[in-house]
Amino acid sequence: MKSKKAWAGLALAASLSAVGMAVGMATAASNEPIQPIPPAKVTQPAMAELGKKLYFDPRLSKSGFISCNSCHNLSMGGTDNLKTSIGHNWQKGPINSPTVLNSSMNLAQFWDGRAKDLKEQAGGPIANPGEMAFTHELALDVLRSIPAYRAEFKTVFKQDAIDIGQVTQAIAAFEETLVTPNSRFDQWLKGNKKALSKYELEGYALFKNSGCTACHNGPAVGGNSFQKFGIVEPYKATSPAEGRSAVTGKDAARFNFKVPTLRNVELTYPYFHDGEAATLTQAVDTMGRIQLGRKFSDDENARIVAFLKTLTGEQPKFALPILPPSSDSTPHPHPFN
Amino acid sequence: MKSKKAWAGLALAASLSAVGMAVGMATAASNEPIQPIPPAKVTQPAMAELGKKLYFDPRLSKSGFISCNSCHNLSMGGTDNLKTSIGHNWQKGPINSPTVLNSSMNLAQFWDGRAKDLKEQAGGPIANPGEMAFTHELALDVLRSIPAYRAEFKTVFKQDAIDIGQVTQAIAAFEETLVTPNSRFDQWLKGNKKALSKYELEGYALFKNSGCTACHNGPAVGGNSFQKFGIVEPYKATSPAEGRSAVTGKDAARFNFKVPTLRNVELTYPYFHDGEAATLTQAVDTMGRIQLGRKFSDDENARIVAFLKTLTGEQPKFALPILPPSSDSTPHPHPFN
Repeated sequence: MKSKKAWAGLALAASLSAVGMAVGMATAASNEPIQPIPPAKVTQPAMAELGKKLYFDPRLSKSGFISCNSCHNLSMGGTDNLKTSIGHNWQKGPINSPTVLNSSMNLAQFWDGRAKDLKEQAGGPIANPGEMAFTHELALDVLRSIPAYRAEFKTVFKQDAIDIGQVTQAIAAFEETLVTPNSRFDQWLKGNKKALSKYELEGYALFKNSGCTACHNGPAVGGNSFQKFGIVEPYKATSPAEGRSAVTGKDAARFNFKVPTLRNVELTYPYFHDGEAATLTQAVDTMGRIQLGRKFSDDENARIVAFLKTLTGEQPKFALPILPPSSDSTPHPHPFN
Repeated sequence: MKSKKAWAGLALAASLSAVGMAVGMATAASNEPIQPIPPAKVTQPAMAELGKKLYFDPRLSKSGFISCNSCHNLSMGGTDNLKTSIGHNWQKGPINSPTVLNSSMNLAQFWDGRAKDLKEQAGGPIANPGEMAFTHELALDVLRSIPAYRAEFKTVFKQDAIDIGQVTQAIAAFEETLVTPNSRFDQWLKGNKKALSKYELEGYALFKNSGCTACHNGPAVGGNSFQKFGIVEPYKATSPAEGRSAVTGKDAARFNFKVPTLRNVELTYPYFHDGEAATLTQAVDTMGRIQLGRKFSDDENARIVAFLKTLTGEQPKFALPILPPSSDSTPHPHPFN
């Protein structure tokens, strides 16, 4: 299919409206800096099912209380809606928990991109003393002691032994299913001109014309580059997070962060790596000032916020997983020591 | 079909197999101290749906991190599988979190029965400084600030104002749906003689003949009386919990606790009000000694445990709820102060 005029002519001639719509969709998307999110392709359903259990299993933490879903809560846009997260022993996390939704589209994981993909990311929090405070080896001891997990890993990976690579691969396989297609904005992109109001479209026009799409573009409306936070004027940070320089060691990368996706941004408050912007209004105002050197009027700001709320897609819908019970030999959690 | 010969003959004569089964079920159940769990009757689906959201909503806690599901986790038998629970600011709870599954069948709620029903119970943890550490009024401020909740409460309760009675009634309505029918034991009760092995049936015979069913009886296999913990020999408690006397003020009720349901007991480890029994083997051994004055042999113990594992029913299956987002005027959570 695809954009070019010759194809459009062909489409008009076509008698099947489905063909016409498909061409229309491609045309709209290719003219815009943002493209629709394709629905998840679940290529390994059994692995994703196993990963879903692991994602919800607090036994991967020292306390037996914290799971991936604690801070990337799929009831709440894949975040915890806190400024910074709560870790083992109620430790205050250093950074705002980014959404897991559509995270497979990110060029790298974590705000500073220190994990190259979801598989690499998944191992981090388990062993982070400030988060789940466990070790990979202890987490594996737990999983290996649970007969139903042993059987399920064997079915999925065709091996007798469970290793951390399998665990993180399964979690990543589940996370890859967590995409949010069919937002109103995507419906509009695909040709349904009634999907957005005039007010929202004015917000989108402002979003494009002001330069927001320089960084917030692509299907995830972000997630595909690192950018300096505070280009025009410096950001007054409350957090010691240094961003990309902590990974590259290069001073020039200081305060460079992965551009967050704006998909479902209505659900992923508060905003920025330090969670200091409580509302979209504040976030848009700050971004205008420090990144674009532009002070949006209240009216402009409200239009942009209205547009941003059209980026809320269909949330992943699945049955809450039932976890296999521990056995008598399963190591006990240690919440208080 | 079922037990008694005369009834079986009647059932065979019946042309509708459904009639035969109904008669057969009643007969079997009436001969046993344990009756099958009926499936949930959802009489108010819209209220239960609202209650499900509230059950999963951590915004009912001061921190924005703890929901009902944190300690009564429906992925894990309706418990947290910890000795005692973790509350606000990682406080160590005083008592083991009882399962929410089939809790509508309890004669009262909490280990000491201080709440007469699920509605009364639901308000407790929200305002308990050691649990969710909020107040009812602050929780209501949060809910009232969320447009989608306002609309849903209005639809369900036909009133403009949200009050705590509505909140706890909705949570209770959801919890009433959390029953676990069709365990293998229930299948056996209903006449499927192949549902249990000889070994498991020997365990059930021991369970009955040793006197366990004096307290663990009825559809919930418990939950319908308060009993002294440590009848034959005293229980060496690690917890200061006093049980029923804390409610009645009567010294005679000291160390009386609500008999817990044994439904899904395979999933609700660790056991007892202080969570000190890590395994079913330990729990059966202790109960035999201190309640019945009987030391079960390893072999007897194993048979009883095998029977107990047949009480695991179908776990409630539902889509993880998607929570409505906060608005700009929603009070922020306070996890760290």
